Parts: sequence; C-alpha cells; structure tokens
Amino acid sequence: MTVELMACTPDPERICGEAAAICTHSGNPEKALRAAIRSGHESVLEHASYTFRITGLSRVALAQLTRHRLASFSVQSQRYVPLKPESQHYPDSIQKHGFSRKAARLSRAAMDLYAEMTEAGVPMEDARYLIPQGVETELILTMNVRELRHFFRLRCCERAQEEMQNLADTMLELCRNTAPLLFRDAGAPCVLGTCPEAHPCGSYHVNPPSLRDHP
Amino acid sequence: MTVELMACTPDPERICGEAAAICTHSGNPEKALRAAIRSGHESVLEHASYTFRITGLSRVALAQLTRHRLASFSVQSQRYVPLKPESQHYPDSIQKHGFSRKAARLSRAAMDLYAEMTEAGVPMEDARYLIPQGVETELILTMNVRELRHFFRLRCCERAQEEMQNLADTMLELCRNTAPLLFRDAGAPCVLGTCPEAHPCGSYHVNPPSLRDHP
Amino acid sequence: MTVELMACTPDPERICGEAAAICTHSGNPEKALRAAIRSGHESVLEHASYTFRITGLSRVALAQLTRHRLASFSVQSQRYVPLKPESQHYPDSIQKHGFSRKAARLSRAAMDLYAEMTEAGVPMEDARYLIPQGVETELILTMNVRELRHFFRLRCCERAQEEMQNLADTMLELCRNTAPLLFRDAGAPCVLGTCPEAHPCGSYHVNPPSLRDHP
Amino acid sequence: MTVELMACTPDPERICGEAAAICTHSGNPEKALRAAIRSGHESVLEHASYTFRITGLSRVALAQLTRHRLASFSVQSQRYVPLKPESQHYPDSIQKHGFSRKAARLSRAAMDLYAEMTEAGVPMEDARYLIPQGVETELILTMNVRELRHFFRLRCCERAQEEMQNLADTMLELCRNTAPLLFRDAGAPCVLGTCPEAHPCGSYHVNPPSLRDHP
Repeated sequence: MTVELMACTPDPERICGEAAAICTHSGNPEKALRAAIRSGHESVLEHASYTFRITGLSRVALAQLTRHRLASFSVQSQRYVPLKPESQHYPDSIQKHGFSRKAARLSRAAMDLYAEMTEAGVPMEDARYLIPQGVETELILTMNVRELRHFFRLRCCERAQEEMQNLADTMLELCRNTAPLLFRDAGAPCVLGTCPEAHPCGSYHVNPPSLRDHP
Repeated sequence: MTVELMACTPDPERICGEAAAICTHSGNPEKALRAAIRSGHESVLEHASYTFRITGLSRVALAQLTRHRLASFSVQSQRYVPLKPESQHYPDSIQKHGFSRKAARLSRAAMDLYAEMTEAGVPMEDARYLIPQGVETELILTMNVRELRHFFRLRCCERAQEEMQNLADTMLELCRNTAPLLFRDAGAPCVLGTCPEAHPCGSYHVNPPSLRDHP
Repeated sequence: MTVELMACTPDPERICGEAAAICTHSGNPEKALRAAIRSGHESVLEHASYTFRITGLSRVALAQLTRHRLASFSVQSQRYVPLKPESQHYPDSIQKHGFSRKAARLSRAAMDLYAEMTEAGVPMEDARYLIPQGVETELILTMNVRELRHFFRLRCCERAQEEMQNLADTMLELCRNTAPLLFRDAGAPCVLGTCPEAHPCGSYHVNPPSLRDHP
Repeated sequence: MTVELMACTPDPERICGEAAAICTHSGNPEKALRAAIRSGHESVLEHASYTFRITGLSRVALAQLTRHRLASFSVQSQRYVPLKPESQHYPDSIQKHGFSRKAARLSRAAMDLYAEMTEAGVPMEDARYLIPQGVETELILTMNVRELRHFFRLRCCERAQEEMQNLADTMLELCRNTAPLLFRDAGAPCVLGTCPEAHPCGSYHVNPPSLRDHP
C-alpha cells in the first residue's frame, strides 16, 4: 500500500485557529485553537481538509474505510476498469501460518476464471463476483481534521485490523508533518492515557514527547 | 436476496405533510406535501424513515450501497462471524455464459481454504481476504424518504448493476405500499419522462397509472 | 414553549437491538444493545428516529438548535408567514432584573413598526430585520437516537442556555417514556459521573435510580 | 458585508480532475472532470474546499445560511461577545419606503436597552433577546465545491433574499477566479437555461461567455 498526501488546506493551523478565535473574539488564534482542542470543541477543526491518494488497498479495507460517512471518496470502478492479475493483498498471518502458496494458487485461479469469463462476454461488473475480497484498488480520499482525528482514534488502535492500522498510522504521520498542533494528540485513545475498550490490549502507546506537557 | 420492511415512521404522509404545512402555515398538509414534492423542496421528506432487513446481499452490492452516506447501516461482521460455505451470490450472466460450474468450484475451493486456514489459527478477519466478493451478508439499513427517493433515482435505473436494481425495486415496492403519495413518482428518472444519461437505454419505464394525472 | 412527540420509530429498542445483534450474529438483541451502548458503538442507535413539534421557541434558541446538522428541520418561514404581535420570548433574568416593562415596550414598538412597514409595502422578509431575536417560531424536528443522545449531552448541561436546557430536558423526558433503555444514561455527562468542562458547575445531577446498577 | 476567501484546496481543478480520472482509470484528468460535471457525477467535486471569512452578515441571513448542513461554521458568539451599537443591517426596501429613520431609532433603543440590561447584571446571552434580528455577525464558513455549487443554484436565484443573493454572488465570483472550470456553470439554474420554479421570474441570467461552447 502506498499513501500520498495530494493536498491539504494551506496553513491549516492558522485557518482553524482563526475559526476558534472568531467564536469568542479572541486576539490569539493559536491559544484559542489549543483551548478548543483541549475542551473538545472540535467543530473549528472542520475548516481544514486533507486529500490522500491510496493505492494497493484491499477491498476488505475499503469496506471498512467507506463506513466513515463524513468523508469523500473517489474509487477505481470494478465495473469499468479491468482487474489486473497481480493486484491481490494478503495479511501477514496467512504467510505466517504457511498458507502463502495456497492463497496465491487460489488467487491465480480466480484471475484466470475472470479473464476467461470476460473474454466470453460476461461483463466485468459480473465476473468480479468471483474475485477474492483481498483484491487491491486505488482511491482518492478527503477528510477534514475533525473527522481525521476521529478516524485515527478508531483505526490506529490495536483492535483495528492490521491493514487499517497501517493505513491510519501512515496517514497520521503525513498529517503530523504538516500541522503538529492539530495532530499531536491524535491517534488511539491510549495516546492520551485512556482506553474505552472493555478489555484493553495492555500495550499502551508511549506518549509522544510533545504531549508530556499537555494540560 | 430477501428484503423485509422492519419498521417505518407511523403515518409517514401525515408527518411529512405537517412538516410541509408548518413552513408556510398552510391549513392543508396533504396539499402542502404535494406542492413540496412538485417543486423539489424535499427537506420535508426527511421526517419519515424506513428500516429494512436485507439478507443474501453480496459484498459487491454492499460496497455500492454503503457509498450512500446519508443512511444508517448495521452489517454482519466478517471479523467476528464465521462465513458459511453456501453463502455465495452469482449474477445471472455467469450462468448464461455457461460458467456456473466453474464458479461454484472456485467458490468451494475458497471456502475450503477459509476453513483450513481458520482451523490452523489464521484469524477470520484475515482468512476472508481469499473469499470471493460475491459472498453474501446480512444487514439492517435505515434511510429517510428524501434519501430513499434519491437512492431509487440512481439504483432503479437500467444502468445500475442488476443486483442493486433488484434491491432498489424491492425496497420501492415495499415503500409504495405504505405511502403511495411519497413514492408514486419515485424510481428511475425516466418514470417521470426524462433521462439525464448521455446515452439513454431506450427502454423507458411505463409510467404508473397514478402518475398520469401528475400535475 | 410546548413540545409534542409527534412520532417515533415503533418499538425502537427492538429495532436498535436487532441492529446490534446482526453485527455479531448475537441471539439476544437486548443484551447486544446494552453492550453496544456500554462500549460506545452508537451507530446501531441511528435506526430509530423521533419527530417533535416545537412551538413557542425563540429564534435565539432556533439558531443554536439548527447548528446540530445531523437532524431534519421544517421551520415556519418569516418570509411568507406574517409575525404575530404576542409572539415574543424573554428569559427569566430580564424579569428578575426588573426589565419586563421596558422589554415589552420595545417589543411592542418593533411589532408596530413591522405592521406599519408591511402595510406600506415593505416585504415581510425585510420588515422582520427590525424584530427582536426573541421572536417565537414553530418547527418540526427529527433526530435519530444517536444524535438525540449527543444533543442531550450538550444541551441538558447547566452550561447550555436556559431555553435550550428546557427544550432538551422536555425532549429527553418524552423520549425516556418510550424507550427507557435507549435513554436512561442520556443527559448531561455528569449523569454518568463525569464532567468534561474546564470549570464544572458543581451541581452534579443525581443519577436516576435506573443507573445505579449500570455496569 | 465583506467576504474574503481565506483559503482553498491548492490546485482544485487538478485534484478534482484526478479524482474523476481514478474512477474510470482515465489518462486525462481535465477531460474526466468535464465529463463528470456534465453528467452530474458531482462527488468528485467534494475533494476541494473553500473557506471564507464573512463579516457584517445579519443574523437573518445567518439563519438561512446555517440551514445548509453540509458545511462548517464558526460564528461569533452572542453569549460571550458583547454586541456593538453600530452593527445593524437593513435591507434596501426599508430605506426605499422611507423607514430608515424609524428603523435606526428602534435599533438605537434596542442597543440602549441591551447596554442598560447588561450593566444591571442581565447576562449578554439573555439581553440579546431584545436585539433586532438584523444585527450583524462575523463567521468563518467552509464548503466543498459540490456543496458550493448546490448553494449557488439556490441562493444566486432571484427568489433568494437580497442579502443571501449578494453573499452568494460574491462567493461565486471569488470561486470562479480560482477555478473557472469548476464554477463556470455554477449559479442559479437559469444560467444553464432552465428554471425549476413554478412561476419563473422572467429575468433569465445572460449566460457567461465561457458557457457558450458548453457541450
């Protein structure tokens, strides 16, 4: 999987800061932004958006990703774009348990059948019903900062599926580079020292240094 | 696929009618509702919601369905619920082109591998990467009338994929039985005599009798 | 202000419970619902909706109410419906500080000017610019249970403006009567023993008895 | 009223174009974008967002603006920011009909009462109930291009209230300067030669030259 940050609102901390400042007529946008984040008034974070190009994401992960409804998606169509034989994703556990070869054989059989059917006149949109769910796709995704932070809380968590964690962690790193203040406390809830799960995983994230002085 | 109407707002035409009437202080909710629908002021249609239980829907169709973001979904998890061997959907074209047996064989091979892998310790959420996208699922779906009408415009159209058309047509019939006024002009745009597609399919729907007197 | 519960999804706890049960293929909807609420998986609560008719709400409160975007509103138009002289709301503090008479005099002057202007040909939509913000309106509001619970968390709090608190408290009572399980832990966060405010008000709500055995 | 374009997604036509291209694996983003707009597949337009700072907007117009729910708002609070005597907006028709002086006198009376009440200890959030709805406010607004185009269709129309038309026209001009392709066919529906109103105003907009060659 590769994730590219295609675009984001220029100067996102200033924009969100001025939005925070306007509410209370504050003269200090940065201070107003810090206060807004600290007290959970996250609507000011909606004014900055991030757009990513994601390639090599499985349709399994896509199904989870598109359940986030406050986001914009443009996804490669399986109705109009032919599938390529090599585009199949396997989680690590399949290899670890010694099933790589069997998995590859099944995928190849599926792709061969897909090719045979589409050549015989079965529409692509129908032939794909036989393709394994791990088939990879490409998409462009846009979320605003408020939704991104929500997304990171859920998907950077150890409980999220491996592929989603990798996606979320990569996106978070890209975001943090552009706007440390907006994302320094983003991530799984344990980053801030709490875990809402009934049975926590026990492997709490080490807080990033920037958070040590978090009020 | 089976579609059951589990619940809807009681007396949906009265509720939407009163919402239409309140805006202009009209004394005639039904007339206000007709005017609102005719002039495209569809926000009053958001006050009534419909909830469906859908079983036997493929994950292919689910991917299309969940792209409608103004809706609520509760879907059977492939992370926590084991897949059953028989739950595989094929579009008609696969049979028509003589690929039924090959498709069934591939599905069985995939289900066997799934069983073998999960028994060997591969988590269900990972083993499913090898399962064909036609695998069936079960979900509960809620949409309000405004979104339902939008959904029917897109998905009752001949250009929609067969499985989606079947789903949309079935849902529309269930809706129409409860509230003819709210849904009599619902469906593909050609129901009302227009088609926005660049290349129309030519097979315009015959208007239902109830629409002949549509103002 | 009067608040009437016009409609809600029939049997809302059963519907939400079945939605919770479908995700994990549980055989016990009520237990699945309790677990979903407890662990914050609130999307299953979107399948039930509530519709209220609210009369005598000031445009001040309406401005706050319509900031909740995951809701449906049909509001009496000030562009097409003439304002009535008596429809003016004052918060208690105006009376308490001895300004009732002055406030009433100003309102009357504004209504007189409104009448004079509209008679002279100023459109209603323009004449209303001079009407005080406390002018009352009427609306129909629909929210699903997830959004209602979010609304109650913010607006039943002592920090919310008095008129909003009254509205939220009344709505919550109406909801609780129809579905105790869905709403027994609803309300300001202090109902459950926590307060996210930087400076808590100190007057923590007494937990309702139904919550004493909350796991 | 002043409207400033604070920020927008950099290179918005390229971003939306690549989103359009990815769906069908097109090698020509600009062509894919034109086709997407022409055929109404507007979801690709969600990837670019625009942020405006609006000052001197009346609370009358704000009430209409915030009814657009697919947008982000940060508005100056009347609970925490004292109102200023001069910040009152009147539509032109009030002056045209000779009511300027009476309107100004009423506004002044309201502001004097506001000052008197807040000095006497009435909270700002309560004293404002007496302030005319034409009182001006300041806000930061973000919408994506899809929602902006929807907004312009409704609010550039002659049927919209004057203040909303001015706001929408100003925003559209600012947008068009940054991305002619995304906005050349934006505006009231009559820009493209059709009017959905039951009783059209008759004063159809002259199509901008850029649209003469619109396919």
